[in-house]
Amino acid sequence: MAKYQALDDVFVALADPTRRAVIRRLGEGSASVGELAEPFPITLPSFMKHVRMLETSGLIRTRKTGRVRICTLNQKRLSLVDDWLAEQRDLWEQRTDRLEQFVTHPQEKP
Amino acid sequence: MAKYQALDDVFVALADPTRRAVIRRLGEGSASVGELAEPFPITLPSFMKHVRMLETSGLIRTRKTGRVRICTLNQKRLSLVDDWLAEQRDLWEQRTDRLEQFVTHPQEKP
Repeated sequence: MAKYQALDDVFVALADPTRRAVIRRLGEGSASVGELAEPFPITLPSFMKHVRMLETSGLIRTRKTGRVRICTLNQKRLSLVDDWLAEQRDLWEQRTDRLEQFVTHPQEKP
Repeated sequence: MAKYQALDDVFVALADPTRRAVIRRLGEGSASVGELAEPFPITLPSFMKHVRMLETSGLIRTRKTGRVRICTLNQKRLSLVDDWLAEQRDLWEQRTDRLEQFVTHPQEKP
């Protein structure tokens, strides 16, 4: 159940262009909340909601350095999405194999 | 903007264990709404909301055959997620290359 919840949180976090842009920017290196917020025409409190959602999902980590909050990407968290996609692909391939088996040896049960 | 919206819809659709289970089940082959709903302890109208959300995202297609609605997975739609992940990975690799360049040739500007 914990894994389901983690995947839910990651997918919810990625379902917004502002949050995806933050992930993308952090892929180039850590940045302060102020630097990250700069390109977006929204208030800092609104932006902080996005930051908190990303942090809850585990996709980013933040730490306070004096009065500045620095955000860092946690690339490993995206592997949850990779793993889920790989699992689906495995299922499709198994199905294709079964269909192929059925077409080439129709008398055998798959 | 259309691409952003499509990604938003796909990520929102994937942010729920029932909808991910439907995607997984359809990976094994098409199925009717009734068959898909069967394992879930929710009402059919609630289940239909999930089906509609999956359809809106483009992850599944549905067609009516008599009184039965058949759902089919649209695997290609998941490539939006693949492409987005690949884009992030490219950025990380470019960054690693720049850091490596800086470490091995610190006098040159990256």
